[in-house]
Amino acid sequence: MVCAGNRRKEQNVVRKGNGFNWGSAGHSTALFTGVLVNEVLKIAKPKHGARYMCMEGADKLPNGYYGTSIRLSTAMDPAMGVMLAHKMNGEPLAPDHGRPLRVVIPGQIGGRSVKWLTRIIISDKPSDNWYHIFDNRVLPTMITPEIAAEQKHWYNDERYALYNLNIQSAICYPAHGEIVKVEEGKSYPVRGYAYNGGGVRVGRVEVSLDQGQTWKLTNIDYPEDQYRNAVHYPTLYGGTLDMANRELSFCWCFWKIEIPTMEMSAAKDIVVRAMDESMNVQPRDMYWNVLSMLNNCWHRLTITKEQDGYSLKFDHPTIPALTKGGWMEKVKEQGGELTDGFWGTRSLVAAPSEEKSSLVVKMTDDHVQRIITEEELSQHSKDGDAWFAVNGHVYNATEYLKDHPGGSESIILASGADASDDFIAIHSDTAKAIFGFFSEQDKMV
Amino acid sequence: MVCAGNRRKEQNVVRKGNGFNWGSAGHSTALFTGVLVNEVLKIAKPKHGARYMCMEGADKLPNGYYGTSIRLSTAMDPAMGVMLAHKMNGEPLAPDHGRPLRVVIPGQIGGRSVKWLTRIIISDKPSDNWYHIFDNRVLPTMITPEIAAEQKHWYNDERYALYNLNIQSAICYPAHGEIVKVEEGKSYPVRGYAYNGGGVRVGRVEVSLDQGQTWKLTNIDYPEDQYRNAVHYPTLYGGTLDMANRELSFCWCFWKIEIPTMEMSAAKDIVVRAMDESMNVQPRDMYWNVLSMLNNCWHRLTITKEQDGYSLKFDHPTIPALTKGGWMEKVKEQGGELTDGFWGTRSLVAAPSEEKSSLVVKMTDDHVQRIITEEELSQHSKDGDAWFAVNGHVYNATEYLKDHPGGSESIILASGADASDDFIAIHSDTAKAIFGFFSEQDKMV
Repeated sequence: MVCAGNRRKEQNVVRKGNGFNWGSAGHSTALFTGVLVNEVLKIAKPKHGARYMCMEGADKLPNGYYGTSIRLSTAMDPAMGVMLAHKMNGEPLAPDHGRPLRVVIPGQIGGRSVKWLTRIIISDKPSDNWYHIFDNRVLPTMITPEIAAEQKHWYNDERYALYNLNIQSAICYPAHGEIVKVEEGKSYPVRGYAYNGGGVRVGRVEVSLDQGQTWKLTNIDYPEDQYRNAVHYPTLYGGTLDMANRELSFCWCFWKIEIPTMEMSAAKDIVVRAMDESMNVQPRDMYWNVLSMLNNCWHRLTITKEQDGYSLKFDHPTIPALTKGGWMEKVKEQGGELTDGFWGTRSLVAAPSEEKSSLVVKMTDDHVQRIITEEELSQHSKDGDAWFAVNGHVYNATEYLKDHPGGSESIILASGADASDDFIAIHSDTAKAIFGFFSEQDKMV
Repeated sequence: MVCAGNRRKEQNVVRKGNGFNWGSAGHSTALFTGVLVNEVLKIAKPKHGARYMCMEGADKLPNGYYGTSIRLSTAMDPAMGVMLAHKMNGEPLAPDHGRPLRVVIPGQIGGRSVKWLTRIIISDKPSDNWYHIFDNRVLPTMITPEIAAEQKHWYNDERYALYNLNIQSAICYPAHGEIVKVEEGKSYPVRGYAYNGGGVRVGRVEVSLDQGQTWKLTNIDYPEDQYRNAVHYPTLYGGTLDMANRELSFCWCFWKIEIPTMEMSAAKDIVVRAMDESMNVQPRDMYWNVLSMLNNCWHRLTITKEQDGYSLKFDHPTIPALTKGGWMEKVKEQGGELTDGFWGTRSLVAAPSEEKSSLVVKMTDDHVQRIITEEELSQHSKDGDAWFAVNGHVYNATEYLKDHPGGSESIILASGADASDDFIAIHSDTAKAIFGFFSEQDKMV
C-alpha cells in the first residue's frame, strides 16, 4: 500500500504544489485476506460496454463521501488480485484500516483502495466523485498551481488519472543525520527499499557514488518470494498463499550493498535508482506536478565530512512528515536550481528566471489586538471550534472546516496550539492567499 | 513489433556492445489474425507448477534452431493477446514474416515472437535454447563486453531476460539533414512516434527546447483507438476487432506539436520524452548495456544555423542501419562524454578515464602479398565460400560462418565486396580481436 504522494516533500521543496507533505516513508506491505472482487463481479455479470468499477466509502469529507474508480478489466483479472478485504495480517481489519470491508488494489496507488466500502457501481464512465477528479492525478509538468486553479479541464482529463505506481526506490540507511566512521578495510551496509506498480517485478537496484557516472549492483531480497519458493504453502507472515501459478509481484523488496567507508569518504553523495523488469528506470530528473505525486527521481543522500576528520554525516533530501531538515532545504535557501537533475550544484543551461509571486497577502487585521493566552487557545480544538496560531497570530478556522481541501481533521489535529511549522510547510501560495481572506485573528502570547 | 535493439546504434556510439546496429526505425505495427494461444493451452491443460511457454522455430542458426520462452501466465491471459498468427494485415503471412505460423506477443520485444513455429513446450523452467540465454537480455550496465565474454553466469540469470518493452519515443520530423526556413509567424509540425510495453498506454509525450528545463505537451493520435471508438466494429486497417472490453494498448501512436520556427532558431536542440500511464518516463541518461538493448533515453535532434542566416539544419543522433552520420558520431570524434545525459556538451563531475584498450591486434600477415581484383573478390559470396575486404585487405570468412554470433547470413550478405564500413560499425573491440585471429588475408586492388 503506497501513497501516491510518497516522496512528495521533495517536489514541494522545488516548488510548492497542492497536497500534504510526505518524505520517503509513505508506504507499507501487509497481508490482506478477503474475496477476489472478480468472483463478485462474475455473479453481477457486467454488461458489454461496461468499463469502470466505481467505489464509494463511508468516509465523509468536505466534498462528499470519498469515492473513485478503476478499470473494470483490472478488477475482473484474477491475476491482479483486486480484493474486498476484511482481514489484515491475519486479524480483523482495524477501524483505521477500513473496517469492516475495504478494497485492496495491489500495485496501484493507495488512493484507489477505498476504505469503509459502502457501494460498488459498474459503469461505462469513470467515477464522477470529487476526489476521483481532483485528487490522485499527475497533471502535466507545465501546469502550475495558478493554471490548475483556473483551468479545471486539466482535472477532467482521465489520461492524467493515476492507477499503477511507477518504479521507485529509496535509501533508508544511512539514516538522516547518521554518523559513519571512516576506517580502512571497513565497509557500511547501505540499505533501502524498492517497489513497482502493476505487478511488474523490481529487476535491479543500483547505487552510484559519482552522481550517475558509474553504478554498482545491489543485492535484493524479495520477502514475497518466500511464498513462491515454499513448496507446501506454510504459514508465512500470518497467512498461507499458493503462488505457484502467479508471476506478478506487488510487495516491497529490500536492497543492500556493502560499501567501503573509504570509498564513501571520497564521494559527495550516494544515489540509488531501481529498474523494473521492463527496463523502466527511475529518472535523474524530477517530474514536478501540481498535486506532487509519484515523484521517483534518483534518491540522493549527501555526504559531509565531520570536523573530527574521520567520520561522515549523511543528509536525506527531506525528512518524513512535517519535520524540517534535509539537504534540499539548504540548497533551496542558497538559491540553487533543483529542477534540472543536478541537485543544485550546477546547471547545464541558464535556468529560466523563477517566477516569484508578486502577490503579498495581508493575513492580519490591524484593528484586532486582543491578547490570547496559550491556555485559552488550547481550549479551541474540536470540530465546531478550531483555533490555531501561525507566526504569533491566532486564527479561527471553524467556518473553514467544511471547505478545507485536506479535510477538517487535519485542521482539528493542528488546532489549539502553535501550528506555524505545519502551516508553512504544507500550504501552497494559493492556499496561503485563501487563508488570508477567510481568517480572523487575534494576538497570541 | 519492436526490435529490442531499436535505437541500439546510439548505445554503440557510446561504447560498442555486441549486436547489430539499428537507428530509431526498428519497429512497426501490423494487424495480425490468428488463434489466441490461451485457447490452445486450455485444451493442453498445463499442470500445476508449469511456469513457462517455450517455443521453437524452423530458423536454423549457427547455434541451433531459434527458440525462446515467455511466462505461461502471460500466454494464458487472454487480455495479453498472445497469438498463433497466420495472417498479417489481412493477407496470409509472407515467408519473411514467419509463414505458415508464427507467435505474436503484443507489447513484448520482437525476439519473443517466434517465426516459422514448429514446437511449443510447457515447462517449469525457461527455455534453454542458446538464443534465449545469449540474446535479448539487458545485463547490468557495469558488465563490459570483456566481463560478459568471461563470466557467462550473467547470461544465465533469468532476471536479466527481457520481455515487455519500456516506454519509448523518437522524433521523425524534422528528418536527419532536413532544412527548415526560419520565418516570423511560421511554425513547423514536429512529429514522431511513441510506444510502450505490456499493454500499458502511452500517457503523454513532451518536447523540450531548453534541454529539459521546461517542456511542452504534444497532441497524440492513437490509431488503435479507432477500434475502441467504433460502435459497430467496421473493417479498419484490413480487419475487424471488438475492443469494447479490452483496455490494453499495444500499438504505436503518433505525436505532433507545432513549434514556431523563431523559437527553434533560439534553441540548440529538440528533445522528446514519453511517459506511460503509470508515470514511468524516459530517462535523460542512457542505460548502456552490453547487448545494446532497450535504449530509451531522451531522443535528441541538434539544431545548426545554416550560413544563409535564415534556415536551420537538424541532425538526428544516428542514422538507421549502417549509414554514417548523426551528431553522436561528431561528439564522439571530438572526445565528448556521451554517457552522462549531457550529450557531450558538459560533464557534471570529472569523467572516469575511459578505458582504452591496450590490445592492438595485428590483423594482417606480412607474408601474404597476393593482389586480388574486385572481380575475383565478387565471386566469393556464398555459403561455403565467403570473402570480404576491410581497409584494403581481403579476408576469407568461410571457416567462421558457422561460429559468427550474428549468423552466417550477415557475413554472406556483406561478402564479395568491400565491407569496411559495415565491419567497423558493427563490431566490438572484442570481435575485432577475434577477427584478427581467425583471418587470412590478401591484398585487394
